[in-house]
Amino acid sequence: MNSLEQSILAIGQQARAAGRLMMKASDQQKADALLAMADALDTSRPELIQANAKDLHRARERNLDAPLLDRLTLSEKTLIGMAQSLRQIAAMPDPVGSLGPTQVRPNGMRIAQMRVPLGVVGIIYESRPNVTIDAAALCVKSGNATILRGGSEAINSNMALAEIISAGLRNAGLPGQAVQLIPTTDRDAVGYLVTMTEYVDVIVPRGGKSLITRLSEQARVPMIKHLDGNCHVYIDSAADLDKAHDIALNAKTYRYGICGAMETLLVHRTVASTILPKLADSFTMKGVELRGCPETLVILPDATPASDSDWAEEYLAPILAIRIVDSIDQAIEHIARWGSGHTDSIVTQDVDAASRFEREVDSSSVYVNLPTCFADGFEYGLGAEIGISTNRLHARGPVGLEGLTTQKWVLRGNAQLRG
Amino acid sequence: MNSLEQSILAIGQQARAAGRLMMKASDQQKADALLAMADALDTSRPELIQANAKDLHRARERNLDAPLLDRLTLSEKTLIGMAQSLRQIAAMPDPVGSLGPTQVRPNGMRIAQMRVPLGVVGIIYESRPNVTIDAAALCVKSGNATILRGGSEAINSNMALAEIISAGLRNAGLPGQAVQLIPTTDRDAVGYLVTMTEYVDVIVPRGGKSLITRLSEQARVPMIKHLDGNCHVYIDSAADLDKAHDIALNAKTYRYGICGAMETLLVHRTVASTILPKLADSFTMKGVELRGCPETLVILPDATPASDSDWAEEYLAPILAIRIVDSIDQAIEHIARWGSGHTDSIVTQDVDAASRFEREVDSSSVYVNLPTCFADGFEYGLGAEIGISTNRLHARGPVGLEGLTTQKWVLRGNAQLRG
Repeated sequence: MNSLEQSILAIGQQARAAGRLMMKASDQQKADALLAMADALDTSRPELIQANAKDLHRARERNLDAPLLDRLTLSEKTLIGMAQSLRQIAAMPDPVGSLGPTQVRPNGMRIAQMRVPLGVVGIIYESRPNVTIDAAALCVKSGNATILRGGSEAINSNMALAEIISAGLRNAGLPGQAVQLIPTTDRDAVGYLVTMTEYVDVIVPRGGKSLITRLSEQARVPMIKHLDGNCHVYIDSAADLDKAHDIALNAKTYRYGICGAMETLLVHRTVASTILPKLADSFTMKGVELRGCPETLVILPDATPASDSDWAEEYLAPILAIRIVDSIDQAIEHIARWGSGHTDSIVTQDVDAASRFEREVDSSSVYVNLPTCFADGFEYGLGAEIGISTNRLHARGPVGLEGLTTQKWVLRGNAQLRG
Repeated sequence: MNSLEQSILAIGQQARAAGRLMMKASDQQKADALLAMADALDTSRPELIQANAKDLHRARERNLDAPLLDRLTLSEKTLIGMAQSLRQIAAMPDPVGSLGPTQVRPNGMRIAQMRVPLGVVGIIYESRPNVTIDAAALCVKSGNATILRGGSEAINSNMALAEIISAGLRNAGLPGQAVQLIPTTDRDAVGYLVTMTEYVDVIVPRGGKSLITRLSEQARVPMIKHLDGNCHVYIDSAADLDKAHDIALNAKTYRYGICGAMETLLVHRTVASTILPKLADSFTMKGVELRGCPETLVILPDATPASDSDWAEEYLAPILAIRIVDSIDQAIEHIARWGSGHTDSIVTQDVDAASRFEREVDSSSVYVNLPTCFADGFEYGLGAEIGISTNRLHARGPVGLEGLTTQKWVLRGNAQLRG
């Protein structure tokens, strides 16, 4: 075992030990820790901005592009937002220890399920240093220990934030090692982290598809994955066309780069010639390129022809694929074939169509008369999110505090015996 | 791609297609299918016993041992039990489509979680042919498609049962391929099955630890694992000693070979000299070998000295390790260090001790004043179980219909927009 592997192993062992203590922490302690971190973020702004300046300097030397520099930057404003987020998460109800409905069995024993922390959560993320705070806060509140592995570009910012986090934990009588940042940018560290099944219970990879694909090959620890969002809006024959216009426009243009952005618009044949020209005007005004199926091109002759690869693509850009369909069945089939099971929406005034779409579209979020860009933990009332899961098991869609817990069975009896 | 891999791939593709139809099946259809299977089990007993005879003949030729032959045998009685189980599962409430509590967000949109099938479930199991029926029934009722891989010893019995299952499905207008049995005993088939992430959503391995360890190395599909049950009973200083005696005796001797059997008894020092001699008499009468810590040996001089390996072992046999502890803390520590997180119980009349144990013991089932041998899906009111999960994610403890489903978010709005 080399020294890097040894040091990751030691981090894992410390996380496991801290996790056992976090499991028992009271909500008061956890809230106190988060509030102490928020206060420290407020008072340490100059030091944090200084640490961040080192990362920015190095990033500029390496000619990183503007959006990346933007995501890397800790400004006064982002620091204020991070402190706010900590205070919000501190105020949320503690999921740990809550009991589901109690059943009484025929022999009189009582049975229920209790929410408990997952244990040790490993989070692998890229350059945004605010994830360090959000992820730590969600894991602390849900009673987990956390191992953070941030992007190498943000190492100085993250180290400074990690100190504030550990001090906040100790301040509340909790183990400082309940949140640990891997203090090296060596890539091999990730390989050790995702195979340490004895000390890590789940890995949350936040980053591009290539990161997740690479980790899927290596990982032995289960992952809560966040893969692509190839999201659809289907405008039904029974749609209110004014609503349909606004929903489709918002779904695409609220922000192009988010996983909940609409990538393909499906339109029922009977309404296509009415709605598409109006929608095309609005999209063109916003600078969105339109790619259509042959029937769409008849209505929108200026659009580019779409090929099969357009149905499959998550553009994350001002490009929209449009297809005209014969029926809700064909819309559901299109989504089953080409979608990524992320977020899909129907626009309709027909309750039966709404129910069928809700039931039969097998995506982690299914909407009626709403734009897909609502796919976000904050919008769902989860406070914040550790990611948007495209897994089928455990947690689907935005993952907040509840997704960072699991349930155990608790049974109480009076010496009932078996057999 | 060789022909075996091609045929497993074809099974996966058919399962995926059948799964899409099963997702939409009504509860009436699913119940009809299960009842048709139950009726066919009743009317086809002679043919099934004949198919089973071929397996038994081959097993005797290969000198398989008596317990294995016993588990392999389809008698009139086991067939009646299987039909009963099908009728019970048919009558259970359909989990699919049920909605959790609905929240209204500040913008008026309504949000809830809906239970949906997992998709395609692969089940790998050993010689008991009754698992073929139980697993198929649970998967059909929960709207999943299933790929079954039974033990090679039971291939003729399983093929005959699989025909009955498919006929029952078709009878109810459901796809016969919603339950498929891998029709070969070739070991490589399992390797293809557990890596086919596009067509299989979860693998449930039922079998020994060695099977699961081997699959863990290969698998790319997530698994609901069923690992060891090193279960504890802790007799607290505030225990009712009559209850403690009966609970400890039942926990060990109800059946030695089940994963919920107690393997280590922890006794608080203040009650050890009162309870242990009486318990030792009862255990000795049942032929249970006792292995004790040094302090236990002072009270029970006939017991064998226990070593650390005894604390770690799942005997599944009439052997019991006994340790005297100073406090509930030491009991909880012992369980954290040596236990397997399966099922652990405290015997106490003290509510505070009961609550602490319930909260702090990190096992999939935690009991108060009950023997650990209750760890079973039927006893928990789940009807039947597909396994007892030792995973932390998704499902812990006995896994029934609900564990075979997942949840999706459903949002209804009235053209609320974002931003």
